[in-house]
Amino acid sequence: MNRGRLILVPNTLDFGAEAVDLSQTLPDGVLQAAARLAYWVVEDARSARSFLKRVSAQVPLAQALQALQIVELPRPRKGSSDTTPAAAWRELLQPALLGHDIGLLSEAGLPAVADPGAALVQAAHASGVQVQALAGPSSLLLALAASGLNGQSFAFVGYLPQDAGDRAARLRTLEALSRREGQTQLMIETPYRNAALLGAMLTVLSPATRVSVSCGLTLPSAWTRCDTVAGWRDHPVHMPDKVPAVFCLLAA
Amino acid sequence: MNRGRLILVPNTLDFGAEAVDLSQTLPDGVLQAAARLAYWVVEDARSARSFLKRVSAQVPLAQALQALQIVELPRPRKGSSDTTPAAAWRELLQPALLGHDIGLLSEAGLPAVADPGAALVQAAHASGVQVQALAGPSSLLLALAASGLNGQSFAFVGYLPQDAGDRAARLRTLEALSRREGQTQLMIETPYRNAALLGAMLTVLSPATRVSVSCGLTLPSAWTRCDTVAGWRDHPVHMPDKVPAVFCLLAA
Repeated sequence: MNRGRLILVPNTLDFGAEAVDLSQTLPDGVLQAAARLAYWVVEDARSARSFLKRVSAQVPLAQALQALQIVELPRPRKGSSDTTPAAAWRELLQPALLGHDIGLLSEAGLPAVADPGAALVQAAHASGVQVQALAGPSSLLLALAASGLNGQSFAFVGYLPQDAGDRAARLRTLEALSRREGQTQLMIETPYRNAALLGAMLTVLSPATRVSVSCGLTLPSAWTRCDTVAGWRDHPVHMPDKVPAVFCLLAA
Repeated sequence: MNRGRLILVPNTLDFGAEAVDLSQTLPDGVLQAAARLAYWVVEDARSARSFLKRVSAQVPLAQALQALQIVELPRPRKGSSDTTPAAAWRELLQPALLGHDIGLLSEAGLPAVADPGAALVQAAHASGVQVQALAGPSSLLLALAASGLNGQSFAFVGYLPQDAGDRAARLRTLEALSRREGQTQLMIETPYRNAALLGAMLTVLSPATRVSVSCGLTLPSAWTRCDTVAGWRDHPVHMPDKVPAVFCLLAA
């Protein structure tokens, strides 16, 4: 019997915001693929159902929403290493071992990138289940492209420490690394701490370092601004506290 | 008068391969936006016309293909730093300063990411031209998602040196960095050197380091395999020499 595949299905980037038309950010082929899948492993069951309801308005689902098997990923505590036993991952992959494709879905963007799901993908490789990632929006890459900073060498480093002193030290380390390698450094923050992170960047970083901020990417209100730290200090902006943002820096 | 915007238009990932249906990888909203644009700055005019011809088969262009203004980006020699004068970038942005949106397009994937275009985006920010990046496929992020390696911290480092000794040294540096930071390292290679790069990785890296290879992403022949170096050595694969590949490594 042929095994099913693990299909990484991208979500929109409007989680927590007003819904954007799916066809603005997701290819029709992705909607078709999502509508065919009967087995799902997801970051959050409620938001997955909401996503599939939006899909069904464009492409009829192969099975009724109520008939789909939707299972949530185990949730390790934030920052802690994953201690989910291997058997639990194999259990989640059971439908694929029985020949059915499984969709993996997070709450926003590509699963397993700055989002849960990588451990399930690893388990799929270990079990001989083929993995297919479908094209969709990534706030990280959209922010990098829109920044105009170095796209030939870049790193995403996730969240910075919350403690002000630790955060400043981390920013200095990232700036030194960026200068040495010519590498753009990308980071994200919980929206209500957006202003605090930008404030720290403008305090800590060198005046000539370039900082790019992208807010609400793919939303109607989306904006990207890139300037030197000196330029940002001269022309400050108000950071929204409920909209996700991506921050990039490139040292001169 | 309102300025136009610089709109980063994603391309498909089938450059040089058999054409895939656009709707597999590009959102309808992107096709609609591309069909409206009269001014383009592109990596290659011929492939841009071919892209717009494919778009026109799905969405009628607002103007005939022959009437579009399609200008190529200046080409700095590979590896050399860009010496295009600022005036040349402003010249390319002229339509936006006169109120028209400009599309920026590369031959594959997102412009300005592992591709030319970033300098034009920087010039747009410097000229007060708003930048909007549209969602589309990125082989780097699809490869990272499909690898199951760490997606919370990752770096793209571009091409490795061609000289075997330099390449081995670079791989050792990247492996050490990956081990220290827990950071997935992504790299690409010219397709005919795919086999040489994989061979070098399997020779140089530690047996427990995990290596993921994604070939021909979004093509019907696409595959991703992730295993330890030891596992790859035990079960070697034939690397295609005409299909783009993305290589990821994560040290144990």
